[in-house]
Amino acid sequence: MTQNIYDDPHFFEGYSGLPRSVDGLEAAPEWPSLRALLPDLAGAHVLDLGCGFGWFCRFAREKGAAQVLGIDVSENMLARAREMTRDEAITYRRGDLEKLEVRSKDGAPFGLVYSSLTLHYVVDLAGLLATVHRLLVPGGRFVASVEHPLLTAPSAPGWVTSAEGRKTWPVDCYLEEGPRSTDWLVKGVIKQHRSFGTYINLLLRADFSITHVEDWGPTDGQIAAQPSLAIERQRPTFLLLAASR
Amino acid sequence: MTQNIYDDPHFFEGYSGLPRSVDGLEAAPEWPSLRALLPDLAGAHVLDLGCGFGWFCRFAREKGAAQVLGIDVSENMLARAREMTRDEAITYRRGDLEKLEVRSKDGAPFGLVYSSLTLHYVVDLAGLLATVHRLLVPGGRFVASVEHPLLTAPSAPGWVTSAEGRKTWPVDCYLEEGPRSTDWLVKGVIKQHRSFGTYINLLLRADFSITHVEDWGPTDGQIAAQPSLAIERQRPTFLLLAASR
Repeated sequence: MTQNIYDDPHFFEGYSGLPRSVDGLEAAPEWPSLRALLPDLAGAHVLDLGCGFGWFCRFAREKGAAQVLGIDVSENMLARAREMTRDEAITYRRGDLEKLEVRSKDGAPFGLVYSSLTLHYVVDLAGLLATVHRLLVPGGRFVASVEHPLLTAPSAPGWVTSAEGRKTWPVDCYLEEGPRSTDWLVKGVIKQHRSFGTYINLLLRADFSITHVEDWGPTDGQIAAQPSLAIERQRPTFLLLAASR
Repeated sequence: MTQNIYDDPHFFEGYSGLPRSVDGLEAAPEWPSLRALLPDLAGAHVLDLGCGFGWFCRFAREKGAAQVLGIDVSENMLARAREMTRDEAITYRRGDLEKLEVRSKDGAPFGLVYSSLTLHYVVDLAGLLATVHRLLVPGGRFVASVEHPLLTAPSAPGWVTSAEGRKTWPVDCYLEEGPRSTDWLVKGVIKQHRSFGTYINLLLRADFSITHVEDWGPTDGQIAAQPSLAIERQRPTFLLLAASR
């Protein structure tokens, strides 16, 4: 089972205070780019892997999804999601993405499987992608964000500032894929580092067609509104992936 | 027109002395991986963009290609390629990849377009890929290597060694795509930096299906034979791309 760090009380407290936890999708700078990759949701069955507080599940219903199923490993997050939701067409369920077993309420295949910043916790990503492919209707979409391989690669991640004030991100271990223990909100958060090619090839081996790949960076407008985002152009935090069955 | 650095006498002298120039494909550590991406060449028309000394053109003929056309911007390299070739089915021609105009000898579409370490010199890659797609037979393959985005990104490329002896590659400017002037063999070699996503999306927009993407790294056997290759695992030099029309 993937490390369930979200049920660590200190992690959960820290995570709950992040802008994207408090204010939802609009507070996530990569959201407009991710949203642009979504298909028409009207009447679709939608599955959200790593649904957290359920912000995307509720968005999908606002956009006309017929049924939405949100899966998360964290009881804390699911409890909060349920508190924030009054909608019979949204179901939240605890599940381990290492051995995902789901079906939609009426057994219909999903038109969209969505996953925000979750796949880098999954060890058996090949297995999960095979399941996702099987759950999708032919032509259905898989849209996901992951922590960027440049973010996850280093043995000692952290910006380095040169004598001239230039900030660089020190990459090593890029081709040494596997677990990375990092300190984010709490010590010892385990994430899986994968190279760019591995993400693409795992999708291809699961019989997906790649439709879009994006090293996410902020727009000029976003930087004007939030100058701290500028550093994302030096080394992106997010990789966005879109594929179709 | 792309900078024709290969006709700079100092560059050409330096380049001519590289193992891959003297000993051909087998001296290029990424070659076994690139070769694994090739389709059956028997009877195929093959186009090599940036053919250099013609090593791949001759390989394609050994593997049964019907006709091979090698294009390069460098007169020096084409002259050397012609000296090394005695084969009526191989044609070398000077061409600018910014406005590629080619057809096979009998007008038949190509079964393979190949390009080794050339596309990162091309400014209008979208235009070139559209042309490549048009030149391919349906189902035909495009196989290419480029300098890895991690290699081309930094404003000041070069390994940094920490006090503990750890080597890291300082990334910045990753999302600032465009020309980079680097010193390689001579000063002021102009290459185009592109992100991963841009390479993939340019292929997709040209209507290719992606079939394989590889951040190339050496095998254990290659490192045993040539220990200096080990650093490639810290930060790869090559990105391999395979797509089909």
